[in-house]
Amino acid sequence: MTYLNHIKNPQDVKKLNVSELETLAEEIRAAILNRDSKIGGHVGPNLGIVETTIALHYVFNSPKDKIVFDVSHQCYPHKLLTGRQDGFLTDEGMQKISGYTNPAESEHDHFVVGHTSTSVSLACGLAKARDLKGENHNVIALIGDGSLSGGEAFEGLNNAAALNSNIIIIVNDNEMSIAENHGGLYTNLRLLRQTEGQAELNLFKAMGFDYHYVENGNNIQTLINSLSQIKDTKKPTVIHIHTLKGKGYKFAETDKETWHWNLPFDINRGQVTVSFEEQENYGDITFNFLHQKIKQDPSVVVLAAGTPGAVGLSPERRKALGRNYVDVGIAEEQAVAMSSGLAKAGCKPVFCVWSSFIQRAYDQLSQDLAINNNPAVILVFSGAISSMDATHLGCFDIPLISNIPNIVYLAPTTKEEYLSMLDWGVEQTAHPVVIRVPTEVVYAPAPIKANYDELNKFEIVEHGKDVAVLALGSFLTLGRQTIAKLKEHGINASLINPRYISGLDTKLLNSLKQDHQIVVTLEDGELDGGFGEKIARFYGADKIKVLNFGAKKEFTDRTPLKELYHRYHLTPEQITADILNIK
Amino acid sequence: MTYLNHIKNPQDVKKLNVSELETLAEEIRAAILNRDSKIGGHVGPNLGIVETTIALHYVFNSPKDKIVFDVSHQCYPHKLLTGRQDGFLTDEGMQKISGYTNPAESEHDHFVVGHTSTSVSLACGLAKARDLKGENHNVIALIGDGSLSGGEAFEGLNNAAALNSNIIIIVNDNEMSIAENHGGLYTNLRLLRQTEGQAELNLFKAMGFDYHYVENGNNIQTLINSLSQIKDTKKPTVIHIHTLKGKGYKFAETDKETWHWNLPFDINRGQVTVSFEEQENYGDITFNFLHQKIKQDPSVVVLAAGTPGAVGLSPERRKALGRNYVDVGIAEEQAVAMSSGLAKAGCKPVFCVWSSFIQRAYDQLSQDLAINNNPAVILVFSGAISSMDATHLGCFDIPLISNIPNIVYLAPTTKEEYLSMLDWGVEQTAHPVVIRVPTEVVYAPAPIKANYDELNKFEIVEHGKDVAVLALGSFLTLGRQTIAKLKEHGINASLINPRYISGLDTKLLNSLKQDHQIVVTLEDGELDGGFGEKIARFYGADKIKVLNFGAKKEFTDRTPLKELYHRYHLTPEQITADILNIK
Repeated sequence: MTYLNHIKNPQDVKKLNVSELETLAEEIRAAILNRDSKIGGHVGPNLGIVETTIALHYVFNSPKDKIVFDVSHQCYPHKLLTGRQDGFLTDEGMQKISGYTNPAESEHDHFVVGHTSTSVSLACGLAKARDLKGENHNVIALIGDGSLSGGEAFEGLNNAAALNSNIIIIVNDNEMSIAENHGGLYTNLRLLRQTEGQAELNLFKAMGFDYHYVENGNNIQTLINSLSQIKDTKKPTVIHIHTLKGKGYKFAETDKETWHWNLPFDINRGQVTVSFEEQENYGDITFNFLHQKIKQDPSVVVLAAGTPGAVGLSPERRKALGRNYVDVGIAEEQAVAMSSGLAKAGCKPVFCVWSSFIQRAYDQLSQDLAINNNPAVILVFSGAISSMDATHLGCFDIPLISNIPNIVYLAPTTKEEYLSMLDWGVEQTAHPVVIRVPTEVVYAPAPIKANYDELNKFEIVEHGKDVAVLALGSFLTLGRQTIAKLKEHGINASLINPRYISGLDTKLLNSLKQDHQIVVTLEDGELDGGFGEKIARFYGADKIKVLNFGAKKEFTDRTPLKELYHRYHLTPEQITADILNIK
Repeated sequence: MTYLNHIKNPQDVKKLNVSELETLAEEIRAAILNRDSKIGGHVGPNLGIVETTIALHYVFNSPKDKIVFDVSHQCYPHKLLTGRQDGFLTDEGMQKISGYTNPAESEHDHFVVGHTSTSVSLACGLAKARDLKGENHNVIALIGDGSLSGGEAFEGLNNAAALNSNIIIIVNDNEMSIAENHGGLYTNLRLLRQTEGQAELNLFKAMGFDYHYVENGNNIQTLINSLSQIKDTKKPTVIHIHTLKGKGYKFAETDKETWHWNLPFDINRGQVTVSFEEQENYGDITFNFLHQKIKQDPSVVVLAAGTPGAVGLSPERRKALGRNYVDVGIAEEQAVAMSSGLAKAGCKPVFCVWSSFIQRAYDQLSQDLAINNNPAVILVFSGAISSMDATHLGCFDIPLISNIPNIVYLAPTTKEEYLSMLDWGVEQTAHPVVIRVPTEVVYAPAPIKANYDELNKFEIVEHGKDVAVLALGSFLTLGRQTIAKLKEHGINASLINPRYISGLDTKLLNSLKQDHQIVVTLEDGELDGGFGEKIARFYGADKIKVLNFGAKKEFTDRTPLKELYHRYHLTPEQITADILNIK
C-alpha cells in the first residue's frame, strides 16, 4: 500500500496528483474487497463510486462541506478516506464500523442512514440551516439511479430545485437498482446517457436544476474538473455521473445483482465461502406456491419494490412469473396502493416485502388499502428481532400494521400453516391480509385444518392449566420449550398459537379464566404497541396475571441475537423464572 | 333547472349538445354552491373541474371506463352526474353522501379517498388488472397540480409511464395547491402553461408519456375534442388541463386559498354564516409563540406540508415568518426529513401537521429523525377522536408515533403547559420531540413548573386513593369530571396528568400500588397500540386492576362525536359505572 495508509483525513487526499489518486483508487478497491470478502457487505455500489468519492474529497472540504450519502451503502470509499481504514484492513477493525454512515463514527458522517431515497431531503435541511445561519459551505447529496424511484427522493428534488441556493445532487447512474430499474424515470436517464447529457428532454432541467453530465464517472481527472466547476455554486445543481457498478472486479461487473451485496467470498474465484445447510427457505416456499398458483389463475400477481432478491425472487424466478410479476422500483407506497387497485379490479396481488421496508408505506396501508378493505395480500419477510443494523430492524411491523383497522395480520408458525394462510389470503375477498412470514422453516406435526374466515380464532396446541403461554408465529418453538421447562417445575401449562396478530379470541381468552392464573405472551418484535399489550388490556380488570415477553422499544445496532434474547428474557429459562417469580 | 334533474347517470350526459352541456355546467355550479353554502365543503376545486367532469362523462363510459379522483375533494360534479343530486339539492340528502368518493355510494366511485397523491398508483393497479384479465377499457386518474408534490404521485407516474398500456392521467393545473405551490415541479408546469404545452422541457414527456395540453380547461368543446382524441389510447398519456380554481364564483376565483374549503356561507355576500365565540385557538397560540421566538432566534424555522391554513398559518402569518417559514408542498416525508437535517445543522425546526397527515411519514419519523435522535419538533394538530370522514381521522397518531424509539411524545393539557412543553422542545437538543396539540383551549389553574429533561415524569393533579385516573392530554378535563363523579360515590380518586405519551413513570406507577386498587387510563385516540395498553402491561403481574378507555380500532365515518364517546364509554357516567362494576 503506497498511499492509502497515509490518508488520515480528506485533507491528505488533496496532496496527491491525479496519477497518485488513481493508484489510491486501486488501493481503496483492494481494501473494499478485503472487508467484503471477509465479512460480507455491499460490493458493486462501493467499487463503482471509488473515483467519485476521491474527487469529492479532493475538490470539497469535508466536514465543512457536507456530503450526505443515500442509503449510504456506497460509503466505504468515504470511510477509507476519513480515518476508518482499520474497518477494512484488520479483523478487529471490521467489527467496529458499520456498513453505513454514522455520525458516532466520524464528523464526516452526518446521518445514520440505511433506507433509500432520503439524501436529498436531509440535504435540503442542511442547506436551509446553512442559509438561515449565514454560513457558507457546499451541501452535497449523493444518490444512485435506483434510489430515485422512491417518492421521498422526488419530494427532495422538488424542494431542492426551489432552494435558490447551493445544493449539489450527484446522481450516480450505474444503470442498476439492486435489481434492474423500472419506470419512466429510467427512460429519461437512458436518453441522457445516450446523448451524453445533451437531450432536450431532461427531468432535472425541467425542475429548474443546473445540470451537468459526466460520461466517464470512473475517471478521476474528469470528475475533479466537473466538481471544481460547480463547487460553491449558488444554484441547485444536478451532476449526473455515469459509473460502472462493480468497477474493477470482474465478477461484480458481470453479475451486478448478485454482487450488489454478497456474503463473504473468495476474491480470486468470486465464490461465496460460507455454506449453509441445503434446506428450504421461505423465499423458495413462497415462490413455488405462487408460481403454481399463477399457472392455474392468471389473476394472481406478485409484486416487489426494488428488493426482489431479498424475498427469494431471483432473476430466473422473475422471468418464470412473466407478466404476473411487477417490480415497482424502490417504491413501497406504489406497491401497496397498486395492490389495492389490483385487488379492487378482481386480481389477486401478493406484495412481498421486508419488515423494515413496509414501514415506508404506512399511509398507503391505512388509506389506499385498509379503508377500502380491498383483498390484497402482503407478505412481510424478516419480521423478527434480529442482529441487523439499526436501520434494518424487523421488530416494528406488529405495532405498525396490527393497529390499523380492517387489516387481518396473520402469524403462521410452520410451513404448512403458512401455505394454508397464504392460500386463504389469496382466495378470500373480504379483507386486506398481511402475513408475517416465519423466519425459520418448521414443519407442522399434523395437517392444518383451519378456516380463517371466522377471524381471530386462536388454536390451543397443548391443553394445560394454571399457566397459558400464547406464543406468536415463529415463537411457537420458544413456547414449546417454555412449557417443557415449566413441566420440570411441575406446571402443566397450556400452549396457544394465536394465529391472528390483529385481533383477540375473546371466547378462548375468557375460558382461560376458569383454570389459569397466569397468561404469558411471547412475540418476536417490539412489545410497545404490540400483541401482548392487547392481552394485558383484555385481562386488565381480571384476577389473571399477564406477563409480556418481546423486544424493548429501542434501536439496536448489530447486537448479537443471543445478547438481545437474553436482554429481553426470551429464553425458556428466563421466562420460566419470571413465571415462577410471580406464581 | 333544465338539464341536471334529468341526468340519472352518465349516459344521459351524452344526449346533450355542447350548448346544453354548458347550461348543465352552470346548474352543477349552482348545486355545488347550494351544498357548500349550507353544510360547508370544498368550493374552488369543484367549481374549477365542472367542465372537465362533464367532458369525461361525455367521452368515456363510466363505470366501464374507470375514473380515479385524487384526494377526491373535487368529485362533486362527478357525484352530480352519477345519480347523487340529492346530496346537493335537499337538506336530508346532503347528510347522506360524503364529500369524497366512496364505492358504497356508487358504482362510479372506485375507492374511498381523502389523502393526497394516491390516484395514479391506484389507477396503475386498475390498469394492470385490466391487462391481466384481458379486458378493454380506459383507466383515468384525475390529479391536481398541488397533489403532484407528494412522493406517492411521483412513484405512480414513474410506474404508469412504464405500463405500456392504456392509462390516462389528467393533470388539473389550477396553479394552486391548497395554498400556493412550492417546488421545482411547478417551474415546469408554469413553462408548459406559458408555451401552451410546446416547451421542450417537459417532465411528463421525459418520463415517456404521450403529452397533451389544453389551455382552456373550462371549455367543454375543447375538452371533448381532446379527450376524444386520446380515448382508447394504448399508451400512457398525460393530458395537462389548465383550469380556473373557483371558476364562476367571484369570491372563490379571487381568494383561492380561503375558498379551497369553506364553512357554510351566504352565496351572495361570500361570507361565512356560522359564527364561533371569539376565543383563542391553538393555531393562534402556536403562531404567536413561534413568531416571537423567531424574532429572538433566527435559527427557529416553521415548516408546513401544503396545509398551512389547517394549522393556523394564514398567508399574513406566513409572510410575517418570512424566510423562517418553509412550505414543502404536500410532502410530509420531505418535511420530516428536512426537519431532521435542519436540527442536525443546529437550527430549531418546528413542523406543524395534522394527525391524519403525519402518518404519511412514518418511515421518516423512524429513520431520518428518530434513529438520528435529532432535536426537531413536530406539532401534531387535531389528534383526537372526531366526527371527521374516515380518511381524516386523528385517532391513530399515538400508536403510530409513541412506539418509535427515541421520540419524546408529549401530551399537554392546557395552553400554559403546551407553551411550556413547546419552549422546552424547541430549546432542548437531546431528543426528537412531538407534541400532541390539545384540541380545546383550557387554561392552567396554576403556573407550570416543570423540567421536562428528566423524561417520563407524570404529574399528580389530585392525590386520592383506591382509584387513580390517568387522563392523557385533552382528556384531563374528562378525568376531572370522572373523579368528581366518583366522589359522588364516595371514592376519593387520584387524578394524574401523564404528560408523556411515549414513556412510563415507573416510580409513580409503582407507588400507586400502595393505596390504589384500580388504575384507569383515558386517551383521546385508538386504544390498540396506545398509551393505556402500556399501563395494562406494566401492571400485568400485579394485583392492581386496569381499565383502559379510548377509541375502538375502527374507521368511523362522519359519526357524531357524542355517539362515539358513548360507544367508547367516554363519559364520566360510563367510566364511573365501569369502575364501580369491577370494584
